[in-house]
Amino acid sequence: MQHYHHLLALFNAKLEEEIESLKKREPVNLYEPVIYTLNMGGKRIRPVLLLMAYEMYQNRFEEALPAALAIEMFHNFTLLHDDIMDKADLRRNFQTVHLKYSGESAILSGDAMSILSYEYLLKCPATHASEVFTLFTETALKICEGQQFDMDFENLHDVSVADYLKMIGLKTAILLACSLKAGALIGGASDKDAQLLYDFGYHLGLAFQLQDDLLDAYGTTNEFGKNIGGDIVANKKTFLLLKSLELASGNIETELKALLSAKSFDKNEKIRAVKNIYDQLDVVRLSENEMESCYAKAIKNLDKVAVDECKKRHLYSVASQLMKRNS
Amino acid sequence: MQHYHHLLALFNAKLEEEIESLKKREPVNLYEPVIYTLNMGGKRIRPVLLLMAYEMYQNRFEEALPAALAIEMFHNFTLLHDDIMDKADLRRNFQTVHLKYSGESAILSGDAMSILSYEYLLKCPATHASEVFTLFTETALKICEGQQFDMDFENLHDVSVADYLKMIGLKTAILLACSLKAGALIGGASDKDAQLLYDFGYHLGLAFQLQDDLLDAYGTTNEFGKNIGGDIVANKKTFLLLKSLELASGNIETELKALLSAKSFDKNEKIRAVKNIYDQLDVVRLSENEMESCYAKAIKNLDKVAVDECKKRHLYSVASQLMKRNS
Repeated sequence: MQHYHHLLALFNAKLEEEIESLKKREPVNLYEPVIYTLNMGGKRIRPVLLLMAYEMYQNRFEEALPAALAIEMFHNFTLLHDDIMDKADLRRNFQTVHLKYSGESAILSGDAMSILSYEYLLKCPATHASEVFTLFTETALKICEGQQFDMDFENLHDVSVADYLKMIGLKTAILLACSLKAGALIGGASDKDAQLLYDFGYHLGLAFQLQDDLLDAYGTTNEFGKNIGGDIVANKKTFLLLKSLELASGNIETELKALLSAKSFDKNEKIRAVKNIYDQLDVVRLSENEMESCYAKAIKNLDKVAVDECKKRHLYSVASQLMKRNS
Repeated sequence: MQHYHHLLALFNAKLEEEIESLKKREPVNLYEPVIYTLNMGGKRIRPVLLLMAYEMYQNRFEEALPAALAIEMFHNFTLLHDDIMDKADLRRNFQTVHLKYSGESAILSGDAMSILSYEYLLKCPATHASEVFTLFTETALKICEGQQFDMDFENLHDVSVADYLKMIGLKTAILLACSLKAGALIGGASDKDAQLLYDFGYHLGLAFQLQDDLLDAYGTTNEFGKNIGGDIVANKKTFLLLKSLELASGNIETELKALLSAKSFDKNEKIRAVKNIYDQLDVVRLSENEMESCYAKAIKNLDKVAVDECKKRHLYSVASQLMKRNS
């Protein structure tokens, strides 16, 4: 992962520069929550993937960094607004913006972040600006669609695992896909390579989200930076829950449905009981299988990208590392 | 205003087409509040101004309509999110989105509208796309800044009339300015003309907002589509209130401050009492004077635009009509 850290450092230096420039803007109350959000950190996977895709074709990083910033800014914007909608209190171990500042601040500073991502995108090299703008805009809209599907699922009784995979495809996977394709386009990749990298990112993103759901239930608060078991407490229709609902019968089904419909409960007790059911139905293994199948599809697409193998090694490495993370 | 209605019909036909296409998108719960918002109607001043500026240079309206749609969509997005932040119940006599649907819907459908405006902008003719994108993005960000200043003012004791004019410049006037400049740019106007039209729109926008504030206090609910006196009830720091605070002394000052700090009050009684003070201090006349001065500056800029007088007549006419509206 040495190379990941090299690109991360490159990106972080640029981000730091941008944060300094945001500090000079007014009104302070608009930009402070933006800076607070950016300073929460994170793995910066999307911008690093963008830079990795780009450097398979070019090495003038300056021309790819604005798009990397745009994507990281947009990603942080979606987290900020999602946290309001999900009434989340913690994000990466920081108090969420709507609690630290206010709901109004979180809405408006989020809106500004969405537009700031376009401000950065405008600094793309003119040769590929139009393609990158179109890709980014399509992606941004689909992410909103994914978030709406996610919210719709809360009130639906018949969500299938396939619906769930479609939803996380929109909500999570396509931004990884977009990052890789944007990097490739800015680097001057062929349309075919750009699309293969998109598909690589898409399936990697699915695997990544399946793992995120596993970590939400089986990670540890400190490493993961969210309250563990939050999805279980909220009856969030993850792969684990949907697969359990599909498989459960008899006493287990009765117990699971009782847990889901209970109006008042002890949070930790609910988490323990639901995880006990997950264990009985072996859904963690099924989720891992699905994750591995998505991962294998991702790798197949990367295999086909028409550049020297040695140029792809960083992407192979980061994909494999992402699957081993515990936070 | 016959020509205004001609361009409005042209725009509305395009908008109707877009609404039909939005009806086919999924998830329905994301796009329904967007369609609901667009169907609230409105004068569509911004897109019509864009088309008027455009037709001073070109007459292939198809190439200007996407930008007109983008600006109307963005304007409606800001209204939608502002209504959440302002906890407004009515907009153009319709229930606001956050009440009709939910706060979450209003946030997310608003986010989608902001991105949809970029989707429309991507259909701009390539020759001027980059300039229009830059102008639009700068404007969009400034509008967020204006909204933040507006919210900041609620908690500040020393807001001046100059601060207020700066705020409405950002929050309202620059989108009119941007509409005119975008239309001019797409039509191929010189940079100088485009800037003059921007300045025309900016000052017209200031006059327009000053009038809006007057209508909020002195209009009638049915015509104006909002609850009359809402600004007064909310202690909103409008020109009328700020000028009153500047001028009030003795008993009037005491009474005004008591009205502003009262925690429980009868809404209609408060509106009556504050308007009584406005009358005593003659601030309506002062506001009208400021409005006329902004209007005169607007016209001066339009005078200088280097096209035949006959081509400007529609803009002169619409500017003059806007100043005579009662809703």
